[in-house]
Amino acid sequence: MKTIAVDAMGGDNAPQAIVEGIERARDDFPDLQFQLFGDESQLKELVKNTTRITIVPTTEVVTGEDEPTKAIRRKKDSSLVRAALAAKNGDADAFYSAGNTGAVLTAGVLLVGRIKGIERPGLITIFPTVHKDQHFLMLDVGANAESKPAYLHQFALMGQFYARDVLGLSKPRVGLLNNGTEADKGDTLHKSVYELLDADPDIDFVGNVEASNLFNAPADVVVTDGFTGNATLKAMEGTASTVMHLLKQNLLNNGLLPKLGAAMAKPAFKALAEMFDADRAGGAVLIGVKAPVVKSHGNSDADAVYYVQKQLDAMLSHGTVQSVIQYFSTHPEKPAAAAAHKEE
Amino acid sequence: MKTIAVDAMGGDNAPQAIVEGIERARDDFPDLQFQLFGDESQLKELVKNTTRITIVPTTEVVTGEDEPTKAIRRKKDSSLVRAALAAKNGDADAFYSAGNTGAVLTAGVLLVGRIKGIERPGLITIFPTVHKDQHFLMLDVGANAESKPAYLHQFALMGQFYARDVLGLSKPRVGLLNNGTEADKGDTLHKSVYELLDADPDIDFVGNVEASNLFNAPADVVVTDGFTGNATLKAMEGTASTVMHLLKQNLLNNGLLPKLGAAMAKPAFKALAEMFDADRAGGAVLIGVKAPVVKSHGNSDADAVYYVQKQLDAMLSHGTVQSVIQYFSTHPEKPAAAAAHKEE
Repeated sequence: MKTIAVDAMGGDNAPQAIVEGIERARDDFPDLQFQLFGDESQLKELVKNTTRITIVPTTEVVTGEDEPTKAIRRKKDSSLVRAALAAKNGDADAFYSAGNTGAVLTAGVLLVGRIKGIERPGLITIFPTVHKDQHFLMLDVGANAESKPAYLHQFALMGQFYARDVLGLSKPRVGLLNNGTEADKGDTLHKSVYELLDADPDIDFVGNVEASNLFNAPADVVVTDGFTGNATLKAMEGTASTVMHLLKQNLLNNGLLPKLGAAMAKPAFKALAEMFDADRAGGAVLIGVKAPVVKSHGNSDADAVYYVQKQLDAMLSHGTVQSVIQYFSTHPEKPAAAAAHKEE
Repeated sequence: MKTIAVDAMGGDNAPQAIVEGIERARDDFPDLQFQLFGDESQLKELVKNTTRITIVPTTEVVTGEDEPTKAIRRKKDSSLVRAALAAKNGDADAFYSAGNTGAVLTAGVLLVGRIKGIERPGLITIFPTVHKDQHFLMLDVGANAESKPAYLHQFALMGQFYARDVLGLSKPRVGLLNNGTEADKGDTLHKSVYELLDADPDIDFVGNVEASNLFNAPADVVVTDGFTGNATLKAMEGTASTVMHLLKQNLLNNGLLPKLGAAMAKPAFKALAEMFDADRAGGAVLIGVKAPVVKSHGNSDADAVYYVQKQLDAMLSHGTVQSVIQYFSTHPEKPAAAAAHKEE
């Protein structure tokens, strides 16, 4: 039995959507139990069935307006901090929140804590591809604004474990997001990372990949620095939603014929919306910390909450974090080898 | 009368599409005349009317496979190099090519030459927005892999002149592409750039903008480093085309009803495709060199070629490059002020 510490007060739809999603996940994943951190009276009223669900009363809430580091330091009895501490102390095996992103990442790094040998934890997001039921993951999508070659080398290795356990790929292909596919492309940082990935026999490196091509799945694990990865993720999300929105608008505003067509084309729109439904692939995972830490969108509904538990079930049953800990404890040269490049 | 030096052999559809687009532009823009650099016999056969069109025979062609710097150095009688040299020598007022991107940029920087006081030329791309007939521009989208704060400061100033002259905005709003909207966001580079833009009274700085939001036009001039800008541009282009492609596919594969719907919804698709038709906004402009240098997509058709000439007509009639030269000759402190940040 694995225990997930849930920040039941995090996100726009908390605590209702959180409780609803957790109860559905509890019914479907028999090896999971849940600690719901939050307002006792609200949670007591919402939880219909307490099988494998424990309410842990807390008195404070971290809001979207809170400055992350301050919130972690000062709101000691918040649902977010208490849930993170449960994962740190071993009272729980994972920490999940739909709350303040900065605060969740900060709690992950400072409270749950970095794995020994890991220079910087990275944030993973999972994307759909044009191939049905095939996904790829990208990291770091924003946990770190500044990057060094060693970080990205470790992201590649950690991303492989995640792709193996959660996407079910025995030998994930690793690509480096760069400004061209040729081996000599990029700035100093990405040229150094290319050499590190290319030289590592533990990495199935397929070379550089470009942001224009990601949906065609040139790689299963796309490695990037947190600044570029953040811009790329946001550009992809923003463009997909803008194009769908404009197309719908055009269909409705171009007279009767398109309006009828739109009604008839509805199933196609729905299929695409489902494909691009980031919620189904789960939340963003902070990897490189001592327990799985997952953050889902602030507007997560019960569905999104449910799929995060599915994702956590996969990570916990495969022992993804243990694999990372084990690998880096037996490969002390991995950050060291990269450290030589730090001076550049 | 302004003269445009055209690499008539550059691009997948050259020289036919180039000649066709140039002849249409010649008919519509009476203040432009053209020098077509390329294979004499082919061009003689293609050009229907030589009014304001001169054929300049060249014997070599730079291909997509050529390494840019080598090509510039060795293929001295290529249409690309000869056209760039015409703009350098004052035989022409601008240089246009749909050929090898790296070679066009290298020719722009090395042959046409940097404007005095400009640290690095930047590459501008123009984007549509969700507001009809409103566009924004972003630079640098890939002329420079490595960046320093001073470069981005100058990109902001140069981008303003372009937005004023070509987009017709009297007071363009400048935004900095960053990993969050708060003033303290970003890595060292972007924090320094924020300070420079915020402190410059000649810049109407609206603060940080995010890649998720660009199509809503939070800024008219989006300033970014060439590495992030390149990834963001490619992510936007790749996502837009993937979403449109998938939606079409879904419409056609989901049975008769959607297929009928698709036929009826065709006008809406067409309207969107036109909106996202990058060609209409012209090509990518290398700004910061002594004459306008424009590169359009390798697969440019006659339409794309035509719209580049429209864009050049706007730049040349407003004297955009002269404004940049004038500004930086009278503001010698602009790169110097930024230079202090270089040590970081």
